[in-house]
Amino acid sequence: MSELRQDPTTYDWVIIARERARRPHEFKKERPDRPEPVWSGTCPFCPGNERMTPEVLARYPEEGDWVLKIVPNKYPALTPDGSTAREERKLFRKTHGYGRHEVLIETPVHNEYIPFMSAPHVESLIRAYRDRYNELKKDPLIKEIIIFKNHGAGAGTSLQHPHSQIVASPIVPPYIRRKYEVTIQYFDNTGRCLHLDLLADELDEKTRVVSESVHFVSLHPFASHYPFETWIMPRVLKSSFGNISEEEIKDLAAVLKDVLARIYHGLGNPDYNLIIDTTPVEDEEQSYYLWHIQIIPRLIQPAGFELGSGIYINVALPEETAAFMRELKVEELA
Amino acid sequence: MSELRQDPTTYDWVIIARERARRPHEFKKERPDRPEPVWSGTCPFCPGNERMTPEVLARYPEEGDWVLKIVPNKYPALTPDGSTAREERKLFRKTHGYGRHEVLIETPVHNEYIPFMSAPHVESLIRAYRDRYNELKKDPLIKEIIIFKNHGAGAGTSLQHPHSQIVASPIVPPYIRRKYEVTIQYFDNTGRCLHLDLLADELDEKTRVVSESVHFVSLHPFASHYPFETWIMPRVLKSSFGNISEEEIKDLAAVLKDVLARIYHGLGNPDYNLIIDTTPVEDEEQSYYLWHIQIIPRLIQPAGFELGSGIYINVALPEETAAFMRELKVEELA
Repeated sequence: MSELRQDPTTYDWVIIARERARRPHEFKKERPDRPEPVWSGTCPFCPGNERMTPEVLARYPEEGDWVLKIVPNKYPALTPDGSTAREERKLFRKTHGYGRHEVLIETPVHNEYIPFMSAPHVESLIRAYRDRYNELKKDPLIKEIIIFKNHGAGAGTSLQHPHSQIVASPIVPPYIRRKYEVTIQYFDNTGRCLHLDLLADELDEKTRVVSESVHFVSLHPFASHYPFETWIMPRVLKSSFGNISEEEIKDLAAVLKDVLARIYHGLGNPDYNLIIDTTPVEDEEQSYYLWHIQIIPRLIQPAGFELGSGIYINVALPEETAAFMRELKVEELA
Repeated sequence: MSELRQDPTTYDWVIIARERARRPHEFKKERPDRPEPVWSGTCPFCPGNERMTPEVLARYPEEGDWVLKIVPNKYPALTPDGSTAREERKLFRKTHGYGRHEVLIETPVHNEYIPFMSAPHVESLIRAYRDRYNELKKDPLIKEIIIFKNHGAGAGTSLQHPHSQIVASPIVPPYIRRKYEVTIQYFDNTGRCLHLDLLADELDEKTRVVSESVHFVSLHPFASHYPFETWIMPRVLKSSFGNISEEEIKDLAAVLKDVLARIYHGLGNPDYNLIIDTTPVEDEEQSYYLWHIQIIPRLIQPAGFELGSGIYINVALPEETAAFMRELKVEELA
């Protein structure tokens, strides 16, 4: 018999479909370990092809060979032109696509995925996320900053070279506003942060925890919408990713390398999305929300039922997938 | 410059990305017109393979060779066992996966897609949807009935034989509840149905209308989340699909055949989802909501930005895609 589980952070329900459940190892794809070459002449992000991207906005380190750099998206979804005033005509409301859309090129090496990067390199990556976040939020028209990464064609990218994207939005998306309001309501009722209570409950049950470090916990949430959906949650209340500390960055780099190595090896380099879930810019100093990372391997295709109902059918048990990831042997990880 | 448009039925925003927009004809896939054989020995829905599916729940016609039939899903997401009482432990809330999950086999012919069916056949299909809807709603534990169709692997199906699915859910999904509440709020403010006002505004602008019949209008909504997203809306207020009349069924069959023929030929048999968007069962007699059909061709892959923000980036202009579909020559349609 299947089970309906409620995500306490959104009130969404998920069907955990035991009848059609697949065992964790059945999700592993058989692909070559490093399908891409180290350099590609047609890749706009590879060294030597710099003319194919717009001017550099920031680079690390500032001198010498770059390890990572940030450029404007050549085909931006949002641009810093026009106003954010709404135009209304009948029931149709619109506004200019004001905002910023940047690309963070994570490495000069075409096939250097995060698990293979050095720890200091991944620290630079997280630091670059934070620095761009804090730079972009200076614009008073910006209400939400979405940092994300698409790995593989099935995750929506056409460029395989490791990169992330940063979108600065003039609107708090209703989806994010709703999640934030759930935490406000919880705080009003209990005086506590919903996410921290949830983390405490997950740590108490332990069955869905993948790894623990000094500052972070990685886990497969109780009401995972997707097989192997992974959250990395900080242990201490901080609403905004923009306020991550240097010490946390060092710890997170190790956790992220480890979590993505487990996904890479355990699932055979699957397509995935990584998202930094953080509070609206104006609520950064409130104590309702806990920023965290969501990693969604794209192992199944949402179908008409998901699109029509908003209920996701998850064909894996989070308890089983978390155990599978937790128990992967360290020597199997790069 | 791109544009942010708000969907008045959900308050979601969509980015219409002009900078990266593709012209309508660029979405057409080059695939063989009828890629599947007329019969497959391994297909559980083909005649002769009846032992591969559970017992028949209903069939049309009742005697003689079947034209379409309904069977329980062999791997149901929900089953009519257990109760719908919630179990709560810490922040984890769950309940049994109570409900029904049925498959409607639309035709005995393995490759007879809806545009190629006779009009009376498509009428039978819509009638079967309605009859199952009205049968399933008799169970007082059922709160929402979701009828949908997945066409093609990219739309989440592994079986190519034309079929639809019907899920009877013990919970009103929060996504559907929210959309319903938007219409209640609109009604409280204006005394009118939001969807009917929206339809009037779309008919007034005309640019996004694809076709009009006596009882229905097909269009690409102002704030389409996906390229070529198509709605078929009734002209007269009816909250629930379960109340569709015989006269409306006849008209809808012709509209559905025509709309899906345009999609088949205009886009080269793309994968798509079809969803019947209807009111919660208990609100069927209220006058806030207008049931309608949503068709979502799966032409792009939602990525980290969509998953993280709930804002969809649409790389096609609804005005252009609607014109493209409207202007397809009739002789091109089967």
